Amino acid sequence: MFFHYKGLQFESTPERPDPVFAMKLQELLGGHWGELTVAMQYLMQGWNCRIPGKYKDLLLDTGTEELAHVEMISNMIAKLLEGAPAEQTARACEDNPMLAAIVGGQNPQHSIVSGGGPVLADSAGTPWSGKWIVASGNLLADFRVNAAAEGQSKIQAARVYNMTDDPGVKKMLKFNLARDSMHQNQWLAAIEELKDEGLEYDPVPSGIIDEEFDEYSGQLWNLSAGSDSAQGRWASGPRPDGRGDFSYVDSPEPLAPEPTPPSADPYLYATVP
Amino acid sequence: MFFHYKGLQFESTPERPDPVFAMKLQELLGGHWGELTVAMQYLMQGWNCRIPGKYKDLLLDTGTEELAHVEMISNMIAKLLEGAPAEQTARACEDNPMLAAIVGGQNPQHSIVSGGGPVLADSAGTPWSGKWIVASGNLLADFRVNAAAEGQSKIQAARVYNMTDDPGVKKMLKFNLARDSMHQNQWLAAIEELKDEGLEYDPVPSGIIDEEFDEYSGQLWNLSAGSDSAQGRWASGPRPDGRGDFSYVDSPEPLAPEPTPPSADPYLYATVP
Amino acid sequence: MFFHYKGLQFESTPERPDPVFAMKLQELLGGHWGELTVAMQYLMQGWNCRIPGKYKDLLLDTGTEELAHVEMISNMIAKLLEGAPAEQTARACEDNPMLAAIVGGQNPQHSIVSGGGPVLADSAGTPWSGKWIVASGNLLADFRVNAAAEGQSKIQAARVYNMTDDPGVKKMLKFNLARDSMHQNQWLAAIEELKDEGLEYDPVPSGIIDEEFDEYSGQLWNLSAGSDSAQGRWASGPRPDGRGDFSYVDSPEPLAPEPTPPSADPYLYATVP
Amino acid sequence: MFFHYKGLQFESTPERPDPVFAMKLQELLGGHWGELTVAMQYLMQGWNCRIPGKYKDLLLDTGTEELAHVEMISNMIAKLLEGAPAEQTARACEDNPMLAAIVGGQNPQHSIVSGGGPVLADSAGTPWSGKWIVASGNLLADFRVNAAAEGQSKIQAARVYNMTDDPGVKKMLKFNLARDSMHQNQWLAAIEELKDEGLEYDPVPSGIIDEEFDEYSGQLWNLSAGSDSAQGRWASGPRPDGRGDFSYVDSPEPLAPEPTPPSADPYLYATVP
Amino acid sequence: MFFHYKGLQFESTPERPDPVFAMKLQELLGGHWGELTVAMQYLMQGWNCRIPGKYKDLLLDTGTEELAHVEMISNMIAKLLEGAPAEQTARACEDNPMLAAIVGGQNPQHSIVSGGGPVLADSAGTPWSGKWIVASGNLLADFRVNAAAEGQSKIQAARVYNMTDDPGVKKMLKFNLARDSMHQNQWLAAIEELKDEGLEYDPVPSGIIDEEFDEYSGQLWNLSAGSDSAQGRWASGPRPDGRGDFSYVDSPEPLAPEPTPPSADPYLYATVP
Amino acid sequence: MFFHYKGLQFESTPERPDPVFAMKLQELLGGHWGELTVAMQYLMQGWNCRIPGKYKDLLLDTGTEELAHVEMISNMIAKLLEGAPAEQTARACEDNPMLAAIVGGQNPQHSIVSGGGPVLADSAGTPWSGKWIVASGNLLADFRVNAAAEGQSKIQAARVYNMTDDPGVKKMLKFNLARDSMHQNQWLAAIEELKDEGLEYDPVPSGIIDEEFDEYSGQLWNLSAGSDSAQGRWASGPRPDGRGDFSYVDSPEPLAPEPTPPSADPYLYATVP
Ligand SMILES: [Ca+2]
Ligand SMILES: [Ca+2]
Ligand SMILES: [Ca+2]
Ligand SMILES: [Ca+2]
Ligand SMILES: [Ca+2]
Ligand SMILES: [Ca+2]
Repeated sequence: MFFHYKGLQFESTPERPDPVFAMKLQELLGGHWGELTVAMQYLMQGWNCRIPGKYKDLLLDTGTEELAHVEMISNMIAKLLEGAPAEQTARACEDNPMLAAIVGGQNPQHSIVSGGGPVLADSAGTPWSGKWIVASGNLLADFRVNAAAEGQSKIQAARVYNMTDDPGVKKMLKFNLARDSMHQNQWLAAIEELKDEGLEYDPVPSGIIDEEFDEYSGQLWNLSAGSDSAQGRWASGPRPDGRGDFSYVDSPEPLAPEPTPPSADPYLYATVP
Repeated sequence: MFFHYKGLQFESTPERPDPVFAMKLQELLGGHWGELTVAMQYLMQGWNCRIPGKYKDLLLDTGTEELAHVEMISNMIAKLLEGAPAEQTARACEDNPMLAAIVGGQNPQHSIVSGGGPVLADSAGTPWSGKWIVASGNLLADFRVNAAAEGQSKIQAARVYNMTDDPGVKKMLKFNLARDSMHQNQWLAAIEELKDEGLEYDPVPSGIIDEEFDEYSGQLWNLSAGSDSAQGRWASGPRPDGRGDFSYVDSPEPLAPEPTPPSADPYLYATVP
Repeated sequence: MFFHYKGLQFESTPERPDPVFAMKLQELLGGHWGELTVAMQYLMQGWNCRIPGKYKDLLLDTGTEELAHVEMISNMIAKLLEGAPAEQTARACEDNPMLAAIVGGQNPQHSIVSGGGPVLADSAGTPWSGKWIVASGNLLADFRVNAAAEGQSKIQAARVYNMTDDPGVKKMLKFNLARDSMHQNQWLAAIEELKDEGLEYDPVPSGIIDEEFDEYSGQLWNLSAGSDSAQGRWASGPRPDGRGDFSYVDSPEPLAPEPTPPSADPYLYATVP
Repeated sequence: MFFHYKGLQFESTPERPDPVFAMKLQELLGGHWGELTVAMQYLMQGWNCRIPGKYKDLLLDTGTEELAHVEMISNMIAKLLEGAPAEQTARACEDNPMLAAIVGGQNPQHSIVSGGGPVLADSAGTPWSGKWIVASGNLLADFRVNAAAEGQSKIQAARVYNMTDDPGVKKMLKFNLARDSMHQNQWLAAIEELKDEGLEYDPVPSGIIDEEFDEYSGQLWNLSAGSDSAQGRWASGPRPDGRGDFSYVDSPEPLAPEPTPPSADPYLYATVP
Repeated sequence: MFFHYKGLQFESTPERPDPVFAMKLQELLGGHWGELTVAMQYLMQGWNCRIPGKYKDLLLDTGTEELAHVEMISNMIAKLLEGAPAEQTARACEDNPMLAAIVGGQNPQHSIVSGGGPVLADSAGTPWSGKWIVASGNLLADFRVNAAAEGQSKIQAARVYNMTDDPGVKKMLKFNLARDSMHQNQWLAAIEELKDEGLEYDPVPSGIIDEEFDEYSGQLWNLSAGSDSAQGRWASGPRPDGRGDFSYVDSPEPLAPEPTPPSADPYLYATVP
Repeated sequence: MFFHYKGLQFESTPERPDPVFAMKLQELLGGHWGELTVAMQYLMQGWNCRIPGKYKDLLLDTGTEELAHVEMISNMIAKLLEGAPAEQTARACEDNPMLAAIVGGQNPQHSIVSGGGPVLADSAGTPWSGKWIVASGNLLADFRVNAAAEGQSKIQAARVYNMTDDPGVKKMLKFNLARDSMHQNQWLAAIEELKDEGLEYDPVPSGIIDEEFDEYSGQLWNLSAGSDSAQGRWASGPRPDGRGDFSYVDSPEPLAPEPTPPSADPYLYATVP
């Protein structure tokens, strides 16, 4: 169960409105790697975590924080949209190319649909999707996704940071950037902790390791012309999982012949010989 | 440019059809973490990689291999669908609950839409989406996603592996599992190589680090009841990025007051006081 | 079965083209609350209405009218797109920021995909989705959605109305606004009629009322800081459904302890203690 | 900002697992009218509410409660999935049509993707979409949607309630049904309060009323054969908005002639006469 | 503008309910090539057709007919769902694997969401999308899509026809199959008429033909191993467009060197050498 | 299995960047009829083709070529985005409406998400969907879709061709236009070959022809006012399938009476009389 405080986790006040930037900031709210994604991702992972204690609590602490970020960015977008040109017409734009550019650069739904508030969509207007969260039940696999998610979302925050010179927006983003650093750090630390405690090891999921064809689990197949890829540590020497060495297959060939297509049920009306 | 061999990378022949399992196997073809996702993800990262040489080649080698996996799984699904009950009616099922169960457990589109072949959708029938690939241009950030993707897809392959006892299917999956291990290993190795070569470092993206509010980049906010999360290495001691120590905020408070909503343009017809 | 007249329900002719506005007008055609939504919603409700007579006829009368609105808006968008800058290049824009702004503010698909006609998408380019219609089979529940839909669509029409000064567009929208008023009125009237005739009553669905835990059906839980919400008629006094009084739970507590996560099947490779 | 309690708002423990029912229960979690929809809808409305005080607080109280419902249903689904047949193969099903039926009736992603936990999708596996929430900024319009949403979600809860005889599931749903009743009541009460306080009136949005063509705002157009629809209170007598009377157009005719299609830019390669 | 008749275009009455088949029949209603697709496709093409007269009228005649098909299939699905096991629980299924299979083979939304009526989705539950219609403004290009659409939808109708032995369903489908034949015939005839009248010719769009690099418009590149494809009429001899001969490129080579990736703006934080 | 060459099929180098055009070019990469659609469509058709030999090889030759087109367009988009205004803020735009227009006309995700590379989406930002490919197993039906697809994609390429004056972009598009011509020609030729070899005939699928109600397979129903449509070759005379003549139904009537709605299970809480 949750309790909501009216205060914000961090100040979220632009110096002045900027509707074109508001559309860009949507990426951090309702984008693939936006705040709603990580909020729902960590909460779903936490609720379904089979180990009581520190991992579960960490997931729920962080998921709950991300809800506060959803709130902060939502508030910021609404303020950036204050006074956005809702009633500016083609005629009004005619003498004012700058106004025309602003009208053209906005997300029209910021006026028409949400009436000056945010939408649950990304910076291209694509609605947020429940497929964007990941919660597999395997903590090592999921913490890898979490660390990766914080990396992608920090890159996006960094890019957006340079698209504004509004001191109020930049101030909030400096906080968000720092939290993205913390969360990258914490998931990387949690990955180490999981492995140190013997709960999981690489490659995930550890439980299936005996079933796989081991002879193919270290080979790099050179399938794009040139063997530049032979020069990295992924082509020879010990593998990070400590289970053997890498090797390089310079001129790979198909291991199986051309398959014979299955015969077709006549009721499928497929074209047959 | 690509060239296609008619042979398959690895043998992909079930001992007998199994249309219910074919639906499950769709997850590995057209699912969030299926073969089409990693194929397009690595190719897009590779084509847009700014560093000529080993990293770019590794991405294109692997993306090209994943196309062969799309082909293998597609072929397997078609063979699993051979003779699937395309013309079995309610009357035929009436005396045969087993047939009824099979008919009910299939993806109807495997007959109606694709005529005994695979669809570009996951095991719940959701179509593959272009939003599922990641290519940010930052290699460390993207390799993290790649390693995470191979973990998720190996878990899914492992789960599916246990849902069949068909020796032919299991044989192919033993190969896929091994390749998932290789790819986890190679991206983990590539992450180390990138950092060793000084091309990127944690937290990504390294170039923005001076802009963030450093005082918040090590704090764990305890926002879910109980302080179990204080017991992990993410709550105290040195951070993985080597830039300072973690700290624990046991009773966090909002840092900003309740925000004042922006005033509303009358043409938005928002409700105002 | 339907018959189509070539004439339009109402005049739909702009004074002059305006491709930027055409993109906005898409919200009223293919948006969440656009004409296609209400057309399909009322028709599906009508076809599936179990009561022959006035309710069914009202649904089909109105759904059929909404198809005429789909036609009117489609025609208007095509006319607004007449002569839209299909061949204007970067070079042509260079000396003409106003042209650049128009090119930038258009939906590119209005030229590339539909060749100067409308698309079945909203003002942000998101395709219309079959999930946007509602037809539950319960008339009171569905008429509530219908009245709400007409409210949302009228707000959007009103906002769009102020984004143009074209007398032809405004003339058509004055008609659409009036029809949105009519439809709000008619669904509100139909809600009253349903209740007066004893066909349904609040809260919907009436048939389940004896199963619910009555002690929780009047409580307002104060879960966001502050008790401002205690001051409304929803916190004390009689409920609209006439089944009891509201009450205010000022300091709510969870009614159940922390749940124990289910044990995990080993074949799921979840992380377990 | 939010704080999370480990306890649940209400007990959520099934007597025994039931993976087929778990798939159905997804509708209440990640469906069009599921808990995530109302949670995000009320929070977004609340954060963007321009009137400080009781309406805003009511929205945030209720949105925060809905997050607790997301948690309860998520927990219930995970428990219903305990021991779901993750490793049951075609061979195992052969002698056991009941097992085959269970395997066929499950959402395969409950094993393959989420490892025994819920997904953010509905009962047909369609991912939750950010387009399903509504927050227009007009409180009367939005409260109408809110009351309608609670009606739809209560119908769905009632239907699902009858698809199980598990006392634990039914106990939780009795609570959910009651909360749906409360929320229908509260939004209906809030609609009255808004109107009594003169903040909004019908038809919404009140501010545009003078612009519309009044002669069309009371007419029912008989566009589906038969005049059964003339018999309701929506066809004659006073309108609910108090702004005039209804009238019935028995044999409606198009008010405008067949439109002339716009001429086509040659660069669009449209077919022209 | 449209007028609706209460009668159906053709009889649509099953002999008895069959909820599992109802799910399959959804493909013909809300699938990629279902009735809603062709209805909206022909209407949008017709409304935007620049040539008054026979082509426009044909499009609108047929689009209007397809709306009647939407109605027929919707009605059939509702009747097939009559008495579908809405309240059958796990316990009831335990002794009745046949019932379990039926429950598992249904679309749960047919009960939970639409209350015994159709949904606007396909047989896998994927919602209908506005992206599935095509209307480019070029009649030859669009008639090609129309003829292709009728072929796909007839295949799907034929497959579904063999999945039932209900005489009532089969009777309706015999009509639908015939209409699919008619519509294939009419679009093929219209393609010929367009070309005979000199309005368009192959390859579409005819207006761009002088701009393309003619030397590449007849070459078949052999990019999949083996030269079986050299044996068809597409590899040598005159082309259907009458503009030259086909030729076969047996061992194709890239025509351009490896591209140099663009340099990266530092604010994008891409990894650079 | 595939092999990748580093060289491009054809030169793909713009003279100078143009981020606004890059957004438009996305339609040819990730749009409904873009290169990814035809690549996956032909490969899936080829892998599932039941006839070994020339048809299968043709499909795989062409599908493999389309992957090279995905690569060419991806590369072009990245180059067009070089130096796109990633850090241009509202303040910088204020004195420079041209810059403002460019910023407003871009897809923000080209900077924020993909860091100067392409996305797998269309020109309106809608993600590519697995539903956009077609592979039914019936070669005649699928080749019709293929010919239609090449027509639509050539129209889009032609439109985009006129939206740039960059000689490098135009040079690449001259090649793409020629390949679209080739592919239209080859699928039209393959349709003839299939019919000449007696593998399929019109209307598809030929195997169902005896089941349909023949009396309705030649009638044109005049359902939109006016009988202009009687004047085409689709209204009288021999049908293209050679199976009879067309006829014209000038005043069509419903063939079935108003349907009786099915009775409702009480547990569905539908509104009943
Ligand atoms: Ca290589
Ligand atoms: Ca905690
Ligand atoms: Ca409160
Ligand atoms: Ca009527
Ligand atoms: Ca070949
Ligand atoms: Ca006509």
